[in-house]
Parts: sequence; structure tokens; C-alpha cells
Amino acid sequence: MTLQIPLGSRVRKSPFFDALVAHGLTHVTVYNHMLMPASFGDPAEEYTALMERVSLWDVSCERQVEIVGPDAFALAQYVSARDLEGMRVGQVRYAPLCDHQGTLINDPMVLKLADDQYWLSIADSDVLWWVKAVAAERGMDCRVFEPDVSPLAVQGPRAEDTVADLLGEWVRKVPFFGFVATEHQGIPLVVCRSGWSGQGGFELFLQDGSRGMDLWNLVWAAGEKYGIHPGGPTLNERIESGLFSYRADCGGEATPLEVGLGRFLSLDRTDDFIGKEALLAEHTAGPKRRLVTVLLSGERLTDTSEHPWPALDADGQAVGEVRVATWSPKHESNLAIALVASPVAGNSFTTITPDGQTLTATHLNFFGLDR
Amino acid sequence: MTLQIPLGSRVRKSPFFDALVAHGLTHVTVYNHMLMPASFGDPAEEYTALMERVSLWDVSCERQVEIVGPDAFALAQYVSARDLEGMRVGQVRYAPLCDHQGTLINDPMVLKLADDQYWLSIADSDVLWWVKAVAAERGMDCRVFEPDVSPLAVQGPRAEDTVADLLGEWVRKVPFFGFVATEHQGIPLVVCRSGWSGQGGFELFLQDGSRGMDLWNLVWAAGEKYGIHPGGPTLNERIESGLFSYRADCGGEATPLEVGLGRFLSLDRTDDFIGKEALLAEHTAGPKRRLVTVLLSGERLTDTSEHPWPALDADGQAVGEVRVATWSPKHESNLAIALVASPVAGNSFTTITPDGQTLTATHLNFFGLDR
Repeated sequence: MTLQIPLGSRVRKSPFFDALVAHGLTHVTVYNHMLMPASFGDPAEEYTALMERVSLWDVSCERQVEIVGPDAFALAQYVSARDLEGMRVGQVRYAPLCDHQGTLINDPMVLKLADDQYWLSIADSDVLWWVKAVAAERGMDCRVFEPDVSPLAVQGPRAEDTVADLLGEWVRKVPFFGFVATEHQGIPLVVCRSGWSGQGGFELFLQDGSRGMDLWNLVWAAGEKYGIHPGGPTLNERIESGLFSYRADCGGEATPLEVGLGRFLSLDRTDDFIGKEALLAEHTAGPKRRLVTVLLSGERLTDTSEHPWPALDADGQAVGEVRVATWSPKHESNLAIALVASPVAGNSFTTITPDGQTLTATHLNFFGLDR
Repeated sequence: MTLQIPLGSRVRKSPFFDALVAHGLTHVTVYNHMLMPASFGDPAEEYTALMERVSLWDVSCERQVEIVGPDAFALAQYVSARDLEGMRVGQVRYAPLCDHQGTLINDPMVLKLADDQYWLSIADSDVLWWVKAVAAERGMDCRVFEPDVSPLAVQGPRAEDTVADLLGEWVRKVPFFGFVATEHQGIPLVVCRSGWSGQGGFELFLQDGSRGMDLWNLVWAAGEKYGIHPGGPTLNERIESGLFSYRADCGGEATPLEVGLGRFLSLDRTDDFIGKEALLAEHTAGPKRRLVTVLLSGERLTDTSEHPWPALDADGQAVGEVRVATWSPKHESNLAIALVASPVAGNSFTTITPDGQTLTATHLNFFGLDR
């Protein structure tokens, strides 16, 4: 289905927006009240550039929630279901956030900028309100706000070469989930080895929105000899790589244990954190649902699924949902993510497409991030 | 600029979505993580239908935050900057919500469904997280969740006839900002005289998402003899009618006093509420900025502005932003909403369009809701 999106000041443009338009932007979506590029008109080439060369993504919509002040660590630690003790400045941890009932409300990367300064680099929900409310109601001594920070992702096998050519050979030594604050041609940046693909690369956290076009153009120029291509988070690649998408994969009502984020929970922590009691109880009882990756039978899907499809067991009973279905070049098969009842997870089931076809879903793996 | 939006399970479809498609939906935006219809391809006719006949809008994206339990009133009252004392069941109050610094975070309608049950019918931010965090951290005895409720708005001079033909003559007695819970052909509904236009009408809060198509079709059939037309919130009409749009008009960092919502603040309340201290201080000092409606010079705008334009005083100094600029049929002029420094508000200023034209902004009024 072809639907246009009207632009207006309710949904923010990023500092890189004019560059996106100049490069032939065709599809956008909305993420954290900001436009996010989805395609430049050739998804197959965008996939290839990411897998074989280097791809440049405006992910400004990964907004930062900055926590700064004497209680910054205590607050970050209390809202995080993963222990943040022992982080050094320049380190990142991927940390599920839950509500008090143990429901996942976001899955940010946490960056430690200083002993009293953290960023939560968030998925699509207003974590700013959550953290502000908790801080204020607990009387914590810190400031919580959204800073002028706009990540630009450079992803793919030649991403390191591109960023090294731009910033220097030193970037090759930045470890995965490590970052360095720097400046280039007067542009303040946090250079982090991270990104929402399995192909490696960096996220450049621009700290001055007025320099967006400068940064984009510098990265573009550095990447030209490596075949840089404009893109955005790439649906089939991220499923192939086992990267979780909050909301897309689970809606708003799932738990980290259901969606395969259990390894990022620190349930043996002795300190209190939001959701601890509920998560411990769920851990004991076992999650009621599981997120799985499955191969789907049938003709090659020409479009990604537009909404969840029902998952059915052998008796035709509803057992969950196929959340996202698409074509996978890697598997040369239709590939899907499904959130299904735990007894079904690991086994085959069926699903029905909007045009009435019944497809068989064959278990590939339990979904989870290798981080 | 023409940009498409890809569909997928990250952004929810409403229970009315298939009806929108059947009626020729062409433009959608995203609001509260849900698709919201923006146009069916003929904005001029959509405006005319709203002004002269009756228009049907899927506003499911106005999500409800339900608060239910012994502490429901205490919680709603604490998060609301407007006093909710004295509300009767079946009444609505429009109530700004602020953070602890007095910044506006949403401007819901509050519906009192029972002494221990409230809905916040919200604008575009995750108030669910805010209210849940406050409830849990204060140890309040109530449940906070998003119920299966999807508002369908029937707006325009023939909206009352349409809804009366469908549900009965009794609806004519429902007062403005009053509601009645009812059922029609087995469809559970809350029938509320409200809506985001100045043309009158109802919002039908569907309480069973599986009946979306049934409700849409019933309303459509009732409205056919009145010339019902599909539409959505209508930008120029809402500015003409002085209806505030959170985020569009102010971004994420304004106060209720700045944007003309002062009359909905109960600053003389003796009980504590979030933001009270900051709002009292701002009230004493006077807001630094004001939201104003202005007429803009120049050729008729063919499109609504895509992002804020700078507002400049006579010396060319930046004094704020033109947040939204569009053509107004009512004023037969370009019309805009601007958030400008208080000394400038009430006077003329200039703005510069993306193609470099300087336009004169002539003061029309200080923005505010007549509710």
C-alpha cells in the first residue's frame, strides 16, 4: 500500500534531513517524534551496500536521555534492569528498562560519559518522562533532559575504513560498545563502535545540531571510495542478525524474558531496581511467551508484513503473532519473528497472510542479542 | 515534498484502518505510536465537509490512559495542573499535565467514568509511562494501563443529526464535554460531546476494537444523507478555531502559561500537584514567551509549512518561531501560529520562508482554547 506522510513541526526533522532529501529520500517513518529515513528507493541496493560496502544512516531519532548530577549513577542504576556497576567512562551497556510490573518499556544503550553523567540512547518511547518522574518523585539530585545529540550511523564492512580515513587510525582501536569523545573540524562528536546492524561500524553522536550537514558531507566524502550508500535500519538484515526491535517485535506489553533479553537482566543484584520483584517471579515461573525466529513457507514475500499475522497451532488455536515477516537474502527464504506461547516456541506452527494463504513457520532460533 | 511511509507492526493500525483504506486514504501520520489519517486526497473538500456538513475521523491515536482503583482520583489530581475536584461522573475536563519543572508534557481531556475510574484522553506523548512511574513511586493503590478504547470523531454542523439518527434523540441533550456510556448493536461505546474542531460534534469512544468496522459503517450509513466525508484533524480549521496542538505549536519545551493554557491551571489549589511551584513562580514573573496567531503577508501558501520558520524583530534579531503556517479560507489569508518572546507578542514581526521570502506577521490574537 502506498501512503504519503505530510510533514509538519509536530514531527521533528533531524540535522541531517536536507542531506537525506539531496540523496533521494523516498520513505520515512516516525520514531521518537522524529522523522527517520526508511529507504532511498532501492531496498535491495541498500541491503547490498550494508552487507558488502558501507551505509550511512541518519538515526537522530535514537534520542538521548541525559542524566547528570550527583545522583546520576543511582538513578540510572535504579531504572535499569541490568547492573551498571563497574562501567568505566567510555563504555556502553545495553540495558532493558522495565516498569514496576516487569514490562519492557525501552531497551537503550547506556553510555557512561563521566562518573556523574550518563546517556540513555533510546528506542521508541518517551523514556524522558519515565526517568524524570522517577527522579523527581524520589527526590534525586540530578538533571534529566534531552541534549542536542544526533547519532549518525556508519555501518558495514568498510565502515571502519571510512571513519578511520575521516577521523584517524585511532578509531580502529575503539572496542565494540566503547566510545571516545572528540572533535573534528570543530564538530563535537562522540565516536562509538555500535549500531543497529550485525555488519559492524560506528555511531557518530553529533553534539551540535547546527553542524549536521557538515558532518554528513564529511562522512560521505570519506566513504565515497568505499562505495558509501544512504540507508537506514534494514529490516531483513536486523532479523538475520538477531537484533531486537522494541514495539515492532513485541508491541507494548511484553517482558524482557519473553523477548530473549534475559541475559541482559541482572536478577542477582542485591540492590533494588524497578521491576525486580516481577522479573524474579517471572524468571521462577518461566515466561509465558517466547520470541522466535522462523522460516516461512510459500512464495517469496514481495513486501514486509504491514501488521501482525495470527500464529496458529496444529489445532488451529491462536497461540500468538507473527510480528514481522519479510524476505531474507541470507536464508533465501521468507523469514519472520513471532511472539508465541512458550509451549509452541521451538516447534513449527502456521500463520495466515492477509490474502488468506496458510504458511508453515519452521523454528530457526530463539531470538536474542549477542551482546 | 512527497514522502511515503512504510507500514509495519512497530506503528499500530487502528480498528478502523481497513475502512480508511476503503474510503481512499492517501496520507497518514504517526501519533502515539499509531497511524492517524491525515487526508483522503482532497484537503479542500475535507475542509468544506467539516465546515458545512459532517466529517468522520479515526482518532484512535488519542489513546486513553486509564486510572482505576481507590487512589485513582488522588493520582489524577496530583498529575493534573487543573483542579479535578467537583467533577461528576459523565463530565470531562481539559487538563494540562506538567513535569516538576512546569513544562507541559501533555494536554489530555480527563473523563470521569466512576468515582474510582478516570481516562486521560491524551495528545502525542507517552503519558502512560509518566503516570505509571508516579503511581508506583508514590505507592498509590490503583492500576494504570491503556485500555481497548478507540475514539471515532464525528464533527461538523450535521454531526449531531448523524449521531442522533444512529443512537437516538437523547444524544442531543449530551452537553459539551459531557458523556454517556451506552451500547449500540452490541457495541460498547462512550458517547462524548467533544472533538478537535470548532464545528461541534461527538467522539464515540469504541470499547471493543474487534467492532471497529461495524461502528465505522454504522456511522457512515447514518451520515450519508448529511453528506458525510472521511477526514481527520484539519490543520487550518483548528488554527482558525484556536485549538492547541501539543508538539506542533510548541515543541517539547514550553509551559502552559506560554502557550495560552493559563486559564486551565488551578494555581490557587491548596493541595500539591506536579509542577505547582514552578508554575506559581512563572505566573508571578510572567511567561517569557507567548503563543500567538498571526496573519502572514505574501502569496497564498500552497502547502503547510514543513518545519518551524524563524521569527525576527525589526532589527532582524531572532525572537522565536513560526511553528505552523498555512492558508486560511476563513481569513482569506495566510495564517500562522508563532511562539515568540513576550515583548514581541501582540506586535508585528517578520519571518523568512524556506525559499527566502520575508513575510510580515500581523498579530491576530493570543492563542488559547475557549473551553
